[in-house]
Amino acid sequence: MSDTPAVLAFDTFGTVVDWFTGISTAVARVLPDVDAGEFAMAWRARYAPSLARVEDGTEPWTGLDVLHRRNLVAELEQRDLRLDDETLDGLTMAWHRLPAWPEAPAALARLKERFIITPLSNGSVALLTHLAKHAGLPWDLIGGSDLWGHYKPAPETYLGLARMLEVEPGEVMMVAAHFHDLDAAQALGLQTAYIARPLEFGPFGNDTTPRPEHPLHCRDLDDLADRLLAAS
Amino acid sequence: MSDTPAVLAFDTFGTVVDWFTGISTAVARVLPDVDAGEFAMAWRARYAPSLARVEDGTEPWTGLDVLHRRNLVAELEQRDLRLDDETLDGLTMAWHRLPAWPEAPAALARLKERFIITPLSNGSVALLTHLAKHAGLPWDLIGGSDLWGHYKPAPETYLGLARMLEVEPGEVMMVAAHFHDLDAAQALGLQTAYIARPLEFGPFGNDTTPRPEHPLHCRDLDDLADRLLAAS
Repeated sequence: MSDTPAVLAFDTFGTVVDWFTGISTAVARVLPDVDAGEFAMAWRARYAPSLARVEDGTEPWTGLDVLHRRNLVAELEQRDLRLDDETLDGLTMAWHRLPAWPEAPAALARLKERFIITPLSNGSVALLTHLAKHAGLPWDLIGGSDLWGHYKPAPETYLGLARMLEVEPGEVMMVAAHFHDLDAAQALGLQTAYIARPLEFGPFGNDTTPRPEHPLHCRDLDDLADRLLAAS
Repeated sequence: MSDTPAVLAFDTFGTVVDWFTGISTAVARVLPDVDAGEFAMAWRARYAPSLARVEDGTEPWTGLDVLHRRNLVAELEQRDLRLDDETLDGLTMAWHRLPAWPEAPAALARLKERFIITPLSNGSVALLTHLAKHAGLPWDLIGGSDLWGHYKPAPETYLGLARMLEVEPGEVMMVAAHFHDLDAAQALGLQTAYIARPLEFGPFGNDTTPRPEHPLHCRDLDDLADRLLAAS
């Protein structure tokens, strides 16, 4: 294992909070006649392309709430559905009130005793602050995308966090349930830890097969805490 | 009383942590022959003018650690004293390891149940993160000066925090032991709370006479918590 990191940077949606359950529950409440899980997946599928359009310069910096709302409207339009503005706002804000994975709050509290722990997420500082209070996530600080004006996997996010905390990239460990996030972090010199979330997409399944380039492959955040606290 | 705030923004040095005790103790350790309290006061007296030189454009953005170290060297030179680089670095970093005022950690934890709590300080995010871990300050997020590239009382700091948290300035309450900080916040529409710290300067005394323009005048952070939690 590499040197003990000073900072653990956590992807949030999927890694620390269960967005699928939170969003599909919120969808079911306002769209009782649609398959809420399938709708949540379709809404989420518009996420990465909308971030990419910001990062490739097709559009200027746009915050995640605006993108979430726009993607929601687009998904509704494709299905010939409409919701009033207030309902659209409320459903968009469901991304601020997602449930933690069950072990996450206590595991983060254990890790906080030894490491600086922060989200490194595409959510805004405001969204991540609301989410932390709602879900009981004891972050030391909030690393939101508006601090860098970039979305992962842009290098400005990973390197911006290291610079802000005045550490070398190699002193930061990126913790995520997504290999593409870890790949981008590793290419910039960060350490990586993979968290298996076989239920990230609910009944739709998720391939959590280990990849040799990310040997710290954890069952969940408790497993990560057990391993890092034993090693340090 | 105004509307209940959503966010409490805390000045840190003097308001939440006891810089005088922390710094004079650190000074005494490396300069046993000087009057450590008097030296701490003289070092601190160079603080506001050095921030002002950044804000008036005399010099470009410079982080607080660099200013602290430079002011330390200047104070030593004025007294024909010298310390080696390692000792200078260590003494500069004493600002990252100050003790909390005794009631602060528990009072902040009470306030966190109801409000978003953040430092709004001239320290950097890294400094404030270290300080929070050292002193047990349970912030929701870290509002450091490097986020705005400005030092209080520049408007960019107070308004930058409100914008980052996506609230109106009037939804933020500035909490400080210094009237000049509250005056600047109030002029921009923030609510204010004064915390009396008669011992901020140790034996050198501090005038904590109430001022009518800041009617929320609290004995300490417990008193603030009692009053805000009773009102909301």
